Amino acid sequence: MTLRTIYDLPTPCLILEQEVLQNNLDRMDAIAKAGQVNLRPHCKTAKSAEVARRATANHSGAIAVSTLHEAEYFLTNGFTDILLAVGMVPSKLPRIDRLQRAGADITVILDSVEMARALALKARDLSKPLPVLIEIDAELHRTGVPPLAEELTGIGAIIHASDILRLRGVLAFGGIGYDRDSLNGIAAAAERVRICAVTAAGRLRAAGLPCDIVSIGATPTRLAGASLEGVTEIRPGVYVFMDLMQQALGVCGYEDIAVTVLASVIGWNRAEQRVYIDAGALALSKDQGMARPGKLYAPYGLVRSPESPFPFENVGVTAVNQEHGYVSRINDKAPFPFDAFPLDSRVRIIPNHVCHTAACFDRYYVIDAEGLVVDAWDRDIGW
Amino acid sequence: MTLRTIYDLPTPCLILEQEVLQNNLDRMDAIAKAGQVNLRPHCKTAKSAEVARRATANHSGAIAVSTLHEAEYFLTNGFTDILLAVGMVPSKLPRIDRLQRAGADITVILDSVEMARALALKARDLSKPLPVLIEIDAELHRTGVPPLAEELTGIGAIIHASDILRLRGVLAFGGIGYDRDSLNGIAAAAERVRICAVTAAGRLRAAGLPCDIVSIGATPTRLAGASLEGVTEIRPGVYVFMDLMQQALGVCGYEDIAVTVLASVIGWNRAEQRVYIDAGALALSKDQGMARPGKLYAPYGLVRSPESPFPFENVGVTAVNQEHGYVSRINDKAPFPFDAFPLDSRVRIIPNHVCHTAACFDRYYVIDAEGLVVDAWDRDIGW
Repeated sequence: MTLRTIYDLPTPCLILEQEVLQNNLDRMDAIAKAGQVNLRPHCKTAKSAEVARRATANHSGAIAVSTLHEAEYFLTNGFTDILLAVGMVPSKLPRIDRLQRAGADITVILDSVEMARALALKARDLSKPLPVLIEIDAELHRTGVPPLAEELTGIGAIIHASDILRLRGVLAFGGIGYDRDSLNGIAAAAERVRICAVTAAGRLRAAGLPCDIVSIGATPTRLAGASLEGVTEIRPGVYVFMDLMQQALGVCGYEDIAVTVLASVIGWNRAEQRVYIDAGALALSKDQGMARPGKLYAPYGLVRSPESPFPFENVGVTAVNQEHGYVSRINDKAPFPFDAFPLDSRVRIIPNHVCHTAACFDRYYVIDAEGLVVDAWDRDIGW
Repeated sequence: MTLRTIYDLPTPCLILEQEVLQNNLDRMDAIAKAGQVNLRPHCKTAKSAEVARRATANHSGAIAVSTLHEAEYFLTNGFTDILLAVGMVPSKLPRIDRLQRAGADITVILDSVEMARALALKARDLSKPLPVLIEIDAELHRTGVPPLAEELTGIGAIIHASDILRLRGVLAFGGIGYDRDSLNGIAAAAERVRICAVTAAGRLRAAGLPCDIVSIGATPTRLAGASLEGVTEIRPGVYVFMDLMQQALGVCGYEDIAVTVLASVIGWNRAEQRVYIDAGALALSKDQGMARPGKLYAPYGLVRSPESPFPFENVGVTAVNQEHGYVSRINDKAPFPFDAFPLDSRVRIIPNHVCHTAACFDRYYVIDAEGLVVDAWDRDIGW
């Protein structure tokens, strides 16, 4: 690939800074090593084989995904140890069968007696045993069995009694960390998540059931410095790229955010005191992240110049239509700094929630520390 | 393609009902014919050559698009008369040049003296003249020149004096129709939009400038039955598929909504009184449409059984994570009807805003009136 600058790229597009990525990977590597746990990156964020290769460089190559399409994509790219970390249903077994026959060692999750029974019945046609983790509700009250629920051991027993399912352990998601206001609060949430997972694992073992794996997920709870006692595996996802939600939570700085959207200024509206960029709802997503008291916030992301890692003060993407982004003042009524946004100039949008923004694109343009475009990496799209 | 039912499709996926589509196309065809105007479908909604072929079957083949990638996609599929209906900037001219050389008759839009001057200068390298429409602000206050603004004729004069640009007329978007509460209100908004466009055209002509094209856009303003006097072209987009915003505005019924997302029920949460589907934020988009007083509304769409065109009463998609959709009661606290949502059963989500939901997918599974899957149509992704 010819070396180019970001001014040679079409807009809108996704830019990935490779040094920032590597720093983020090194940081989580050190946490996994210090905690003596397996690092299984959740590849739903990056959906990229090149990112996954770097994220698993010092590890077993194990990954987590959230769709069967991701599983197929990563298998094609040489990854075999794949955890599908969204609830399994029997109608998806034919694709699991094809994945297994193509060489995947795929693990699925479930959270109910009904699904354990249904899978035990319908998975019989698989050519290989199917490893299963029981999803535990770590106080988020989304999916998962509460750790003290009576049915937990019943689910385990059904899986264990099956000829084709293999009970491997438990899985919990640390989503409650996103609701905390301080690093101490996030660390306390992380401890709640750990206790939920370890408690569930203990109950399964006490019932004479196998439970080798205790897997916990989420980036902020992991970075807040909590204990990993009794945990065998961590499954963070966003840490590879970071975003404004992570920055607002206090687990990274602006300079740690590896992915931004490059956009062109396509119009000025002096009367309305705003400019328009060619990154709208389809390029930024309509995920608004979450505002944090005292933190710079705009619903669709902050704006930086192409060169600085830091956002403009009090300027953000305040509205979007399909292909229009509205850039205006936030927090005050000062005049909009039009001079900083010439027509046809470039800006970079720092995403609130990078999983959703990155999902708008089919590739990353990778840049080095000098801002030169050194590669283009594909990313998976679809189901 | 083997005939299949929707129960053979992977979930989540996009389903398009071909008879409903055709009815919607016929309806707008009749409006264009009655108004004696050119119908230039805005293909940003469908992003599909097969849909565009049907939408232009009785017309000139003219289309509008919102990205250069769409322009390239439709040119590859045989469409040559293409209006790029988002503000042009000079750095995009190399792709315009390639489109022209490949046979496209592409028209661009602009809304400022600065951009008219910049394009007149930078477009000189094109091999063919570049037709231009001046974007008029039809009281939406997004992009466009107000129809009475002094600079309008100045912009026209710069374009007209250029050796390479060709002033063809004016373009206005009828977005103000989305803010009205009744069909009469939408019709009144449509009249405002028409007056803005026709007034601007009259001022250009009075200044001795050419203005053959008076193009106005948006589905609701068009369907509300307003006058087209002085208008030469209409550019509706959403009408091909319809969605819950159009239904709530009163310009279509549930049975006119041609596109839905097929999803699987992957989990139950009895304590929280909701079920989960495998269509989350990446499959439904996070566009929340808009609630209308007295209308059934849920932030991420309503839910129908695979067979009925009508939504469940008081059930909707109330929250989404990346790959989880939360289906729960809306408007009341009655028990959730779990019996209607067996584990691993299918539902169809009726989108609030179909442009954004359809953009999550790379294809449509096309079904006939009997619900058989008769085709798969690709759709364009990216920029």
